[in-house]
Amino acid sequence: MTESKAVVAILGGTGGLGTGLARRWAEAGYSIIIGSRTQDKAEVAAQALRDLMKTRGVAEVSVAAMDNVSAAKAADIAALTVPFAHHGATLESVKEALQGKILIDVTVPLVPPKVARVQLPAEGSAGQIAQTILGKGVNVVSAFQNVAAVHLQDGQGMECDVLVCGDNKEARAKVIELVEAAGLRGFHAGSIANSAAVEAMTSLLIFVNKQYKCHAGIKLTGLDH
Amino acid sequence: MTESKAVVAILGGTGGLGTGLARRWAEAGYSIIIGSRTQDKAEVAAQALRDLMKTRGVAEVSVAAMDNVSAAKAADIAALTVPFAHHGATLESVKEALQGKILIDVTVPLVPPKVARVQLPAEGSAGQIAQTILGKGVNVVSAFQNVAAVHLQDGQGMECDVLVCGDNKEARAKVIELVEAAGLRGFHAGSIANSAAVEAMTSLLIFVNKQYKCHAGIKLTGLDH
Repeated sequence: MTESKAVVAILGGTGGLGTGLARRWAEAGYSIIIGSRTQDKAEVAAQALRDLMKTRGVAEVSVAAMDNVSAAKAADIAALTVPFAHHGATLESVKEALQGKILIDVTVPLVPPKVARVQLPAEGSAGQIAQTILGKGVNVVSAFQNVAAVHLQDGQGMECDVLVCGDNKEARAKVIELVEAAGLRGFHAGSIANSAAVEAMTSLLIFVNKQYKCHAGIKLTGLDH
Repeated sequence: MTESKAVVAILGGTGGLGTGLARRWAEAGYSIIIGSRTQDKAEVAAQALRDLMKTRGVAEVSVAAMDNVSAAKAADIAALTVPFAHHGATLESVKEALQGKILIDVTVPLVPPKVARVQLPAEGSAGQIAQTILGKGVNVVSAFQNVAAVHLQDGQGMECDVLVCGDNKEARAKVIELVEAAGLRGFHAGSIANSAAVEAMTSLLIFVNKQYKCHAGIKLTGLDH
């Protein structure tokens, strides 16, 4: 690679959405660290990613495997893709390691079994919870909550925009670069409080998927007016 | 008219969104009642609507003017388009008149001056507040919260989908008919709890409008997968 790209850790990177993001960013030339609760699980996912990249003809990939805390320490920027039930505990564990960095929170506060029903937390959103736990030393930016994991994984073009929320505009801009590297359109969508809209939309889209038997996404319109 | 269409009251029908909906439904052949806090204000809006329909070449329109309570009584179905600050009081005033009917809640819980910041009420959403106030005898269905009033008013085609939330599927289906009559695509989007997603999205879109100097809307994608 002729230019130095950020090292991106994906905490909880063995799940559907984490796997999809890892594939997209690895293909775009980023150095990836798959983080998981155990080194073993991370290794399995990292090897699967290397193997898949070979089948897709990607010559050179940089993929490491670590536990979540080590991954957060080693990364320039981290994405969090864990189920909401593990959101708070994972953030507490990586809080120190993330100081001075950007955390991309992909978490959606789904409350099983009614995942097609909006049930936002009292704090407003997962993004706001993350910002509170991590403190002002970390720029929390939420993104990718409406993107179907299956579409991220398959490497094809996607008709889903990414609404990027966070209190720091420069941090949002850096995340929008990563959105575009993943092949999607990313937009500044306001403060981390606005993450509530995007997170809630995921439950609504799950309802639409069930109702209309599809993998729905959303796209911004009217941008050229 | 060869077929009998529902009589639709627009409570708070003198504002931007109410005016836009009245124009769309009047053009589609519905009997419209403009409701307002005073008969006088309603009359002015109704006359303006009749005049505009003439300039658009719409031969026959049925437009009445009433105070909100009389409008709710006379209607088959009512839409509520008041600022959030008047939402609760207006609903209390029309509660009895709406029993057995559908209320289309278009209200977005914006909290000035930070209208580009999601600030959902503790109850979850305006739609849920409406359902609680009106009780089980009224089917509350939320819709149209993301549609730019200016686009509704101008009578042109619009690239914005309408996500329709409510606890009763048949009531949602009737509202989807009215969405389509207004020239838009409407979708079943789940229970009234899901209105939180759509209402919150409005603040996010206001942010996008400021950031990108546009009148943004959203469209569902991936429906044919």
